[in-house]
Amino acid sequence: MSKSTMSIVLRLEIQKDQATFGEIATIVSDAGGDIVAIDVIKEGQGITVRDISININDEAKQHRIIQSVDNLPGVAIKHTSDRTFLVHKGGKIAISSKVQIDNREELSRVYTPEVARVCEAIDEDVTLASQFTIKKNTVAVISDGTAVLGLGTIKPEAAMPVMEGKAMLFKQFAGVDAFPICIHPQSTPEETVKLITSLSPTFGGINLEDIASPACFDIEQKLKEQLDIPVFHDDQHGTAIVALAGLLNALKIVDKELAACKIVVCGIGAAGIAITNMLLTAGAANIIGVDVDGALIRSSSYDNASWNDIAQRTNPHQESGSLADVLCNADIFIGVSAPGIVKQEQVKSMAKDPILFALANPHPEITPEEAGPYARIMATGRSDYPNQVNNVLCFPGIFRGALDARASDINEEMKLAAAKAIASVIKEEELNEDYIIPSVFNENIVPAIRKAVMEAAQQTGAAKKE
Amino acid sequence: MSKSTMSIVLRLEIQKDQATFGEIATIVSDAGGDIVAIDVIKEGQGITVRDISININDEAKQHRIIQSVDNLPGVAIKHTSDRTFLVHKGGKIAISSKVQIDNREELSRVYTPEVARVCEAIDEDVTLASQFTIKKNTVAVISDGTAVLGLGTIKPEAAMPVMEGKAMLFKQFAGVDAFPICIHPQSTPEETVKLITSLSPTFGGINLEDIASPACFDIEQKLKEQLDIPVFHDDQHGTAIVALAGLLNALKIVDKELAACKIVVCGIGAAGIAITNMLLTAGAANIIGVDVDGALIRSSSYDNASWNDIAQRTNPHQESGSLADVLCNADIFIGVSAPGIVKQEQVKSMAKDPILFALANPHPEITPEEAGPYARIMATGRSDYPNQVNNVLCFPGIFRGALDARASDINEEMKLAAAKAIASVIKEEELNEDYIIPSVFNENIVPAIRKAVMEAAQQTGAAKKE
Repeated sequence: MSKSTMSIVLRLEIQKDQATFGEIATIVSDAGGDIVAIDVIKEGQGITVRDISININDEAKQHRIIQSVDNLPGVAIKHTSDRTFLVHKGGKIAISSKVQIDNREELSRVYTPEVARVCEAIDEDVTLASQFTIKKNTVAVISDGTAVLGLGTIKPEAAMPVMEGKAMLFKQFAGVDAFPICIHPQSTPEETVKLITSLSPTFGGINLEDIASPACFDIEQKLKEQLDIPVFHDDQHGTAIVALAGLLNALKIVDKELAACKIVVCGIGAAGIAITNMLLTAGAANIIGVDVDGALIRSSSYDNASWNDIAQRTNPHQESGSLADVLCNADIFIGVSAPGIVKQEQVKSMAKDPILFALANPHPEITPEEAGPYARIMATGRSDYPNQVNNVLCFPGIFRGALDARASDINEEMKLAAAKAIASVIKEEELNEDYIIPSVFNENIVPAIRKAVMEAAQQTGAAKKE
Repeated sequence: MSKSTMSIVLRLEIQKDQATFGEIATIVSDAGGDIVAIDVIKEGQGITVRDISININDEAKQHRIIQSVDNLPGVAIKHTSDRTFLVHKGGKIAISSKVQIDNREELSRVYTPEVARVCEAIDEDVTLASQFTIKKNTVAVISDGTAVLGLGTIKPEAAMPVMEGKAMLFKQFAGVDAFPICIHPQSTPEETVKLITSLSPTFGGINLEDIASPACFDIEQKLKEQLDIPVFHDDQHGTAIVALAGLLNALKIVDKELAACKIVVCGIGAAGIAITNMLLTAGAANIIGVDVDGALIRSSSYDNASWNDIAQRTNPHQESGSLADVLCNADIFIGVSAPGIVKQEQVKSMAKDPILFALANPHPEITPEEAGPYARIMATGRSDYPNQVNNVLCFPGIFRGALDARASDINEEMKLAAAKAIASVIKEEELNEDYIIPSVFNENIVPAIRKAVMEAAQQTGAAKKE
């Protein structure tokens, strides 16, 4: 953390008869803070609510200031905005106008009456919408707030900071105009589908985000069937694509073929299913799915419909048993499950040069420290270890490619192409155990994904633009 | 029209065996055009589709070039983009990011993992959404494309250029971030209400646009009841507010009181009803509504529910008969009806100093030329006559004020305050028959409306921020 000046904003409710602003100011100064602004939020009978902006030159002082102020009789801290909150203040994106209107003639061209000609042309040939409206470059980032980060279901308003963050990253990394929309959760997946379908004329693509499973499967599936624009549930496919990219590079290092590897995927939820599907598309032949009941086998029947589906398409040797059982002689472990469920002993039981993607976040299935002596290559979901599986690596580029190809879909081939493109950004001579996944700030990523995705869209007939 | 260089883009479908690009280039040059760019859109067996950008220094040449090219055997013009189309190319708005992310630390603050703290804070206290998300400054411009300009129902994609134009104006004139959303028309007003309600967590206000009546009444009414953010159907209220603003200034010139005037409102559709309501709020006491059946009187019963409602609240002297009948001795005519339905004779029959707002667009109920000798003051919906009633004068400012007051509604008092504020922008000494409505480019308008609307929001308890 830098030692440079930072600011915090305290929202204080002050009982006027018990505390004066002078007392507060003194307390803040004594604790090492510098009051630089005061905003009256609410002035009432006996009570005043004020936002006090305080500069501090050392983050450690923040705690001291808050404690001192909170201890003052008649003063209650209603909210503390530190620098994380401040960067979110007022929202993180804005709308900008591409054309400045300075006179009546310009106004009449962008607006009435001349705009009517553009409307009529699109009404006659609706494909012109992707030429003369924002549809050309605009993606909706839609969430119902039912599975936000690790927080579970939160209010849709509370999910907005994530969706806005996503929109920022879309713009900065790929020039995609993304608009965040948080909706009230609907009663059924069908209602969510109807709602998003109703909005679709506006957009060139739909990025679904943080929608709980199993609803997310249905919603994505039906939207893909009904819409002629790409639909992509990032939590599933973004993770799967980036994990596959890392895996392809890891296999180069250990000199193994994906098709020959025994792969254990642990946690058959939304992400685990997407990873399994992605691995199958990429040519994996021996995947064993594991969840709380142990290895999924096709001779069993599960309450969870998607487990049955996965069981039918994986585990060709019908290996049954616990995670520990099937990890024996496995080449690859991919976990999207729970902290600490993989033990050092189990890593030792894996085949030579074991590859572990322990993606449970923030606490992986096994830490790199613990697995270290026995794992050849490790990846996690965390930024403080090497090889972070971060879907920021994928979604900007994959939509850039899909929009530029005017693709009607983001299909499996396009996802596979994106994974290979991400992997390709690291040159063979740069590859090593701690560098199988490029940094999100690597400028070659988006162009590489874009090109690969456009080609795959062409080859599979998903591209409307030739 | 300026004589400076302008460009057109022709999309040509060329039969390769019948026409060569050289022939086309020659034809274009001969007709006075200069080819500056060629884009291959589609290259197929025997056919190629190309966009040809042509500079011309004289608009008259456009027609000649198009005709010459179109006459070439084997060449079909699929689409012509003139400068109106070009200004719409790719859409007229973009998303911009307020924060540049240059490193992992910054990324972790705007996105995972730090963003989770902001999400949690909003989930605990949802009012923080208007502080830490785009809700603070963002309005949805929503249309179902059922009553766009004078075009009637068009595809939602085709309505986008209007909504984008609106978003531009929101930003340029009032700094409001507005995002255009065109939805598929729903089966019932209730479904539209449900859809918009579902989207509302994202927005600080809803600007309804170009939705057909009578659905628009129901939709707006129910949304106002259900949502705690402002909802405003611009086609109704924007027009009503600006018309009232002009009328207040016109009355100053003729030195009459609104309450004492006999006012004929012709065309009791969405706009006519909103104008009538606005006039009643402003203190008008003698309004006579007229539609195809003549003057609306409370002793009659109409199939149209809103006519009955208007009849109950207007026409205190129960004047019946045709438009011509009730125009006798009227002080004010406001038409939102059909071209040419007011005759010179009828203007002559009005009271001294008649005021006529002939707002049918693009062809007014009577032209200023025709009414000229007999009307004291005229306004129209057109920009090529003085006193244009243009709702661009209203919507940016009224939402600026509502957002800044964190208003839960845009109520009648706030609308009246906006009308008075628009009127006040023209100083008494500037007022004259040809200048009762300020220009949309007058920079004093938005600040004046904002202040007035915020005060009205405070006084009526609509403001959540004190």
